[in-house]
Amino acid sequence: MKMLVTAGEILVEIMATRVGQTFREPGPLVGPFPSGAPAIFIDQAGRLGQPCGIIAAVGEDDFGALNLDRLRASRVDVSAVAVHPGVPTGSAFVRYHEDGGRSFVFNIPHSASGRIAMTEAGRALLARADHFHVMGTALFSPAVIEVALDCVEAVKARGGTVSLDPNLRPELLDAPGMRAALEAILSRCDIFLPSGAELFLFTRARDEEGAVAELLARGVSDVVWKKGADGAVHFDAAGRTAVPGFAVEEVDPTGAGDCFGAGFVSMRLRGATPEEALRVANACGALAVTKKGPMEGTATMAEVERFLAEQGA
Amino acid sequence: MKMLVTAGEILVEIMATRVGQTFREPGPLVGPFPSGAPAIFIDQAGRLGQPCGIIAAVGEDDFGALNLDRLRASRVDVSAVAVHPGVPTGSAFVRYHEDGGRSFVFNIPHSASGRIAMTEAGRALLARADHFHVMGTALFSPAVIEVALDCVEAVKARGGTVSLDPNLRPELLDAPGMRAALEAILSRCDIFLPSGAELFLFTRARDEEGAVAELLARGVSDVVWKKGADGAVHFDAAGRTAVPGFAVEEVDPTGAGDCFGAGFVSMRLRGATPEEALRVANACGALAVTKKGPMEGTATMAEVERFLAEQGA
Repeated sequence: MKMLVTAGEILVEIMATRVGQTFREPGPLVGPFPSGAPAIFIDQAGRLGQPCGIIAAVGEDDFGALNLDRLRASRVDVSAVAVHPGVPTGSAFVRYHEDGGRSFVFNIPHSASGRIAMTEAGRALLARADHFHVMGTALFSPAVIEVALDCVEAVKARGGTVSLDPNLRPELLDAPGMRAALEAILSRCDIFLPSGAELFLFTRARDEEGAVAELLARGVSDVVWKKGADGAVHFDAAGRTAVPGFAVEEVDPTGAGDCFGAGFVSMRLRGATPEEALRVANACGALAVTKKGPMEGTATMAEVERFLAEQGA
Repeated sequence: MKMLVTAGEILVEIMATRVGQTFREPGPLVGPFPSGAPAIFIDQAGRLGQPCGIIAAVGEDDFGALNLDRLRASRVDVSAVAVHPGVPTGSAFVRYHEDGGRSFVFNIPHSASGRIAMTEAGRALLARADHFHVMGTALFSPAVIEVALDCVEAVKARGGTVSLDPNLRPELLDAPGMRAALEAILSRCDIFLPSGAELFLFTRARDEEGAVAELLARGVSDVVWKKGADGAVHFDAAGRTAVPGFAVEEVDPTGAGDCFGAGFVSMRLRGATPEEALRVANACGALAVTKKGPMEGTATMAEVERFLAEQGA
């Protein structure tokens, strides 16, 4: 089995429980939930049985311990998660608007996640990696961008493969060094996993066919276009494969795209066809939204198989 | 009316709602509440009608705005509260043990509060100050200790007075520079407000009479020994005045000592006798514990007077 590694922020998430609630006055909340897009991704990979690990940093507090406990339970290698005494574990407070939108109060660059660095433990983990996944949210500071670029080069130098999920909050794209970093990673990337309009982030073309042609010409071997509840489309040199999504009752959308990506990458690392990989990825995304909490819906391979059987897929 | 100023951390507090709950798994919470011991103190002073202000720092986020809104509503001058974009407002998560104890997950030195510095706005506020209050919790970093010492000297140089509430978490006493800072402030202090065993923090004597004699000999004019629900005892050159506490149903003890201190200092600044000041201070402390949330129980002068009348005091 191939070893999958990622790097980036580990957070606790605190959720407002009432739609329309604000953070300008006290109200009911629920948490802390283990969270952070790279952590959700790698937790999902671990639960699918993929050998995997994460380069990250947490504080020496209950919130760090909560996340480490969870990742260990999902069989994620946490040997390269640094624990920083006196520095808080990152956090995200989320509240839900009447119109379905979300607002956050984040503590990431000034949390332990801001201390993510290439350590000896990180090097040791990378030395065992066959694939490195870049989660765009992790590129939140010049220092962490450097770690990600470092990881990409190390894995490519060993003949490994790289995937990139831009997963960008729009305000991040204009952060210093962000666009250049994304371009550098895309140019080394084997699997590109854009969502919606992110397909056109690096292309001159504004249509599907033109954009995909540009991306394949740049050396990306798999383009996976995520379309949320509508499923996903895979493009490679051999052609186009669309697989519809599954209809489930959405309880909490957070983490669905991260789980989808982990499903797709893990299956491809096992030699699955694009169609098989998309089917598992869609199942992971669908199961993720049925549970409240960003990492609560990550499913085991057995749960994915049961779901696919129920859906007749 | 004399102007009262303090400096220190402004926080949001998030509370676990069930006794015995941990932060190692998701559970029901409530918040964010405006908090931070110096902020509670100055909010209580403002609500008693004392002209007052605070030197502090918050992030440019909902949690900072929540606190600024609250302090402004209590007529606290917030012109010297710096707002730092991109830096999180400080936070405290608190949970309650079966035995009545509390545990916290703090983010203070790495929050906006860690950026507290002497600014032009701080100097302008201090130039109007007749009294400066040092809250021991605010001495959490060498930089903030320096600000506090700076404020003490500025106010004393103008003929003003100083109060000190040690309000120490035990682990803080051994922090670098903490004991020296407390000794320096005590030596400039007019009103000293220790709680329980803090009376003996700076004394060789281990009995009440001996400890008080040492403190008065060092130049402290008012020693106010806080005894929680049992009330408080005042000592000065003229003698000893004990005033019993009020029996109320305790809902949340957080902030009671801070409210007591604000009541005592505000009343003394208005020329009240020690006995009158203790009575109002006890009322502030008692009213504080009847509400859930650190700053929710700060009472106006009208509310204090109504309470005192009800109690026949």
